[in-house]
Amino acid sequence: MKSLVIHAPLDLRIEDANVTDPGPGEVQIAIAAGGICGSDLHYYQHGGIGTIRLREPMILGHEVSGHITALGDGVTNLKLGQLVAVSPSRPCHACVYCHEGKLNHCLNMRFYGSAMPFPHIQGAFREMLVADQTQCAPADGLTPGEAAMAEPLAVCLHGVHQAGDILGKRVLVTGCGPIGLLCILAARRAGAAEIVATDLTDFTLQMARENGADRVINAREDPEGLKPYETGKGTFDVLFECTGAAPALAAGIAALRPRGIIVQLGLGGDMQLPVQAITAKELQLRGSFRFHEEFFTGIALMRKGLIDVKPLITHTLDLKDAVKAFEVAADRTQAMKAQIAFS
Amino acid sequence: MKSLVIHAPLDLRIEDANVTDPGPGEVQIAIAAGGICGSDLHYYQHGGIGTIRLREPMILGHEVSGHITALGDGVTNLKLGQLVAVSPSRPCHACVYCHEGKLNHCLNMRFYGSAMPFPHIQGAFREMLVADQTQCAPADGLTPGEAAMAEPLAVCLHGVHQAGDILGKRVLVTGCGPIGLLCILAARRAGAAEIVATDLTDFTLQMARENGADRVINAREDPEGLKPYETGKGTFDVLFECTGAAPALAAGIAALRPRGIIVQLGLGGDMQLPVQAITAKELQLRGSFRFHEEFFTGIALMRKGLIDVKPLITHTLDLKDAVKAFEVAADRTQAMKAQIAFS
Amino acid sequence: MKSLVIHAPLDLRIEDANVTDPGPGEVQIAIAAGGICGSDLHYYQHGGIGTIRLREPMILGHEVSGHITALGDGVTNLKLGQLVAVSPSRPCHACVYCHEGKLNHCLNMRFYGSAMPFPHIQGAFREMLVADQTQCAPADGLTPGEAAMAEPLAVCLHGVHQAGDILGKRVLVTGCGPIGLLCILAARRAGAAEIVATDLTDFTLQMARENGADRVINAREDPEGLKPYETGKGTFDVLFECTGAAPALAAGIAALRPRGIIVQLGLGGDMQLPVQAITAKELQLRGSFRFHEEFFTGIALMRKGLIDVKPLITHTLDLKDAVKAFEVAADRTQAMKAQIAFS
Amino acid sequence: MKSLVIHAPLDLRIEDANVTDPGPGEVQIAIAAGGICGSDLHYYQHGGIGTIRLREPMILGHEVSGHITALGDGVTNLKLGQLVAVSPSRPCHACVYCHEGKLNHCLNMRFYGSAMPFPHIQGAFREMLVADQTQCAPADGLTPGEAAMAEPLAVCLHGVHQAGDILGKRVLVTGCGPIGLLCILAARRAGAAEIVATDLTDFTLQMARENGADRVINAREDPEGLKPYETGKGTFDVLFECTGAAPALAAGIAALRPRGIIVQLGLGGDMQLPVQAITAKELQLRGSFRFHEEFFTGIALMRKGLIDVKPLITHTLDLKDAVKAFEVAADRTQAMKAQIAFS
Repeated sequence: MKSLVIHAPLDLRIEDANVTDPGPGEVQIAIAAGGICGSDLHYYQHGGIGTIRLREPMILGHEVSGHITALGDGVTNLKLGQLVAVSPSRPCHACVYCHEGKLNHCLNMRFYGSAMPFPHIQGAFREMLVADQTQCAPADGLTPGEAAMAEPLAVCLHGVHQAGDILGKRVLVTGCGPIGLLCILAARRAGAAEIVATDLTDFTLQMARENGADRVINAREDPEGLKPYETGKGTFDVLFECTGAAPALAAGIAALRPRGIIVQLGLGGDMQLPVQAITAKELQLRGSFRFHEEFFTGIALMRKGLIDVKPLITHTLDLKDAVKAFEVAADRTQAMKAQIAFS
Repeated sequence: MKSLVIHAPLDLRIEDANVTDPGPGEVQIAIAAGGICGSDLHYYQHGGIGTIRLREPMILGHEVSGHITALGDGVTNLKLGQLVAVSPSRPCHACVYCHEGKLNHCLNMRFYGSAMPFPHIQGAFREMLVADQTQCAPADGLTPGEAAMAEPLAVCLHGVHQAGDILGKRVLVTGCGPIGLLCILAARRAGAAEIVATDLTDFTLQMARENGADRVINAREDPEGLKPYETGKGTFDVLFECTGAAPALAAGIAALRPRGIIVQLGLGGDMQLPVQAITAKELQLRGSFRFHEEFFTGIALMRKGLIDVKPLITHTLDLKDAVKAFEVAADRTQAMKAQIAFS
Repeated sequence: MKSLVIHAPLDLRIEDANVTDPGPGEVQIAIAAGGICGSDLHYYQHGGIGTIRLREPMILGHEVSGHITALGDGVTNLKLGQLVAVSPSRPCHACVYCHEGKLNHCLNMRFYGSAMPFPHIQGAFREMLVADQTQCAPADGLTPGEAAMAEPLAVCLHGVHQAGDILGKRVLVTGCGPIGLLCILAARRAGAAEIVATDLTDFTLQMARENGADRVINAREDPEGLKPYETGKGTFDVLFECTGAAPALAAGIAALRPRGIIVQLGLGGDMQLPVQAITAKELQLRGSFRFHEEFFTGIALMRKGLIDVKPLITHTLDLKDAVKAFEVAADRTQAMKAQIAFS
Repeated sequence: MKSLVIHAPLDLRIEDANVTDPGPGEVQIAIAAGGICGSDLHYYQHGGIGTIRLREPMILGHEVSGHITALGDGVTNLKLGQLVAVSPSRPCHACVYCHEGKLNHCLNMRFYGSAMPFPHIQGAFREMLVADQTQCAPADGLTPGEAAMAEPLAVCLHGVHQAGDILGKRVLVTGCGPIGLLCILAARRAGAAEIVATDLTDFTLQMARENGADRVINAREDPEGLKPYETGKGTFDVLFECTGAAPALAAGIAALRPRGIIVQLGLGGDMQLPVQAITAKELQLRGSFRFHEEFFTGIALMRKGLIDVKPLITHTLDLKDAVKAFEVAADRTQAMKAQIAFS
């Protein structure tokens, strides 16, 4: 089978790899669709993310779906040929954080396509994958592309959970890439009454508008666009910060009401922050990192038709065009989510 | 002008009353639509609710909307002719609970059409009403009937807030009258992934099915219908209890997962409860009573098209047929929400 | 070695049992002290608790401490001779509730001395016990009797956690047996500003007074004692209900403020409850069941001198007098916590 | 009467002012003790705090207690001669935040001794003060100095409330001035199991040790002192950040466990923050600003002997030595809380 291996910045190769059989409780899956995530792009463009660096070749990818081709012993809930979304989250269930139910903080997490421990955790951009049955969410009725969106959707459902109950609340989303867009969809599904979104690119803002934002602001062209929302100590109840850029966060802080909540999804290193405003307005800046059970929640919501991610998949390229797919994915003036078709 | 006055059980009269001018900060409203609530029915059928009894004639009604006919001094946010929903919630803003932000527990609450204090608080089933501007939610774009649904919708939004974040959760609703139906609408809006509803009447269950319940169970015809949901210590994360009947609550308790939440909206006096199951599963039985700011949230959600209450309004009768409207409203085999048209 | 086996109501026998060696990750412990819990008393007096019945002989006991006599392979954190408190909570860490961090709701819980599954889970009232190292909390500096109190203390710390932040709150405790007393100690430790306690027995009320209650009320002699606390919709923020008796709970409900919290620790089968008051005041009735990590928290707080349970241990009898110890433990006019000395 | 007026940086004058009579619902108070707060020091040293600047002379002071000298009409709960602590928090009870119960975010707050609105809100460092009865907490049994500590204590009780339930938690406090010390006292009262404190001065650290910190670290002499607490993703559950200095906050972030909570009390303008760590560990940075009802809670806890602030009052100077008192208060190598004796 073929797999997609990153060796160094801009050195992404399609390589042969061995196909293995599923062990007890495992299934073998012919991968159908794989979405390119911002972290995949970071490995491709920079060879790592912040202090996390590639130290050996690594198969990329953690947003995948596929059809089951073989069942290991003891697997009874899944069927041959069935489309499944595969969760990349593999906690140990034995460490202190797992025992506390904080599975995304597992000390021994083996998340697909991550250079964090060494040896690295190999990813899922490959034609055939063996996974534990507990990682698989049946995706009957969805397209492979939709099913592969379960992972970034889970990130955003987890983010909305950090905000708590948002029914009837006023929501600001800064950053309209795939994570921002999925936050808009998830926030609307959770009952947000008003959603305003900002970004620097008309293409992404247009997509935000079409997918549920009540109003969009191009912060480059209209840098004062959020000013009116600062009236009376602020307007928004919740900010989903999806850029990791200090100016976006600072503008959002100014527009939040006292006791407002910032869910920080964007990753951006050290940031200069108006902590005095956070203190005086008693804002809460809450980090949101990955997900666990939300992977299955996301599939359930998509299968029920309660969240529709299809419009976000703007590009689908064949595996042989994988490098081009990465280039497309990096261009926010034309691409939202780019996926690779593996079969 | 005419008003609708309850004197004693089954003694409901259309009577003349004086029209007054709005004072500073007040508006005069020509009432357009008024919904009949369960508590109105209790006064009509039984002369009270539990220990709360009629001691003098009282104008009924607290679910109303209308068009503004006069503006008092200092009113600038509202316009002549504008359709508004009128909140019946009038806390004092001066007692200890008001200062804590628990406005619905105000010690001096003057809620329309309530026999609780004496003299009673007269209601809003009248042709002309003078109200404070802060009670009025502009309802442009809605029908008077929809606007009059803001009140029971607010009750249910408040109920959903008691449950906290329900995005992706499994929800059971017991009782499919207007409150049950609005809980279904509100729970779906808040992101419930699965909603099961029970009642004793096919008509209401059919309406539940049409308005968002994924599955309905007639607890009379299928008394074991919830049994399969008891598997593995239970299935549902949240129960909205809208009957006030002990068997419904007990069945729900058995079908809830450990740490599940019961939002108790139904009022039913003393009830025999399986407290041991509540304790062993660490369930939380949370009372939900009226609302305050949710009145305005509800209007916002309806105006955005995020909640559609129109299908619930099954009957609209003229003021002259008010007694008939009460009889219709009491019949759960054919009526969901019955409203009176005042103009 | 000797063990304490219940065969049927009032048929409690001291019997010989085999001593086993610790396996990998396990330790062998010479039990020093064992506290008699209300559930032990139920087995002794009634052969079971509610629907849970003895179906075979069972070693009782789940409140124990002792000295380590042997270390299994891989045990490095514990020392020979060290006093440890032994947690009876043994979740599977593999079921859905364990994965959610709700360890006390484990589907496969093996809690010491419990007739719930069949074959029953044998208890810890025995001279020698083999336990997993993760069950053992080092208790250096405590007496064996104090260390054996870690279990009921954990129940009450868990109960206080259900109430959330109680710093500066007004607290009512109904029932002044060991659980009520430990709730008083835990609530005071958590910052309760005022604690009132009720019971039917002067002896327990006297102990409540001496261990932190600001005021005590004998509900038998002064049945109207809580009436003044009903003023202005109520006085208490939190009720720790430790009786499982409907009259105690009803009196507490009347004395709670709107949005007050009831933590239900007492187990008492079906109860007739004023659900209408719960709804109208928006109270929250929260079940509290066992504990998990609070076992270790309790030991930490005792070792720091932040909670002192010693005054609660009113009786200590030798193993040979175990039956007498059970009779003493059942007499609330003279005993708070009765313990058995095993060595 | 005399009052203490700031005109410009280092220009603090004792000036005559008129004594007024109490109106309805008000009382006249002979101020006894007044504590010098960090914000008083800022006005004295810099003429303002950040962007808030003096624009006219202003009486300083908001931590005061005194004896009642006259009762206005309708005051029945207070007695002539009684010692009261006077809350400087005076919300309008009419704005949107007041109606939401967020009184400390009142749009029209009139907090004593604050240059925030113009004309400035005059303070309480004066011999005679007229205040609303609702601002007065009877302080029988306390010294005037203790009673005047109710205000900074309330700040810290509010801070602990932001952290939620901390019973049995591990707590880090950065900064050991009066706010840090009172956080230690409040956190211990709320059940913290372990408290570690850091500062740059041996004097304050010594006081922290004597008032409840289990361990103290001089971050200047031992800059790696918190390193061992970073093991296994971190140690502390809660950080009370009382410096407003970026290095202290950054060191705390590294030592917090995943999902840990930072309560930000220190005010320090913009700060360079490791937002990526906040995100990856899902920390929550929660601002804490002033207080409202905690003023009364603090008095209750002090009167019950549950919190002892007396050791924190290191200096008491007469009004005529007010300037010297400010100089002393600014010296963290010898002073914790300096107070002025007004009578």
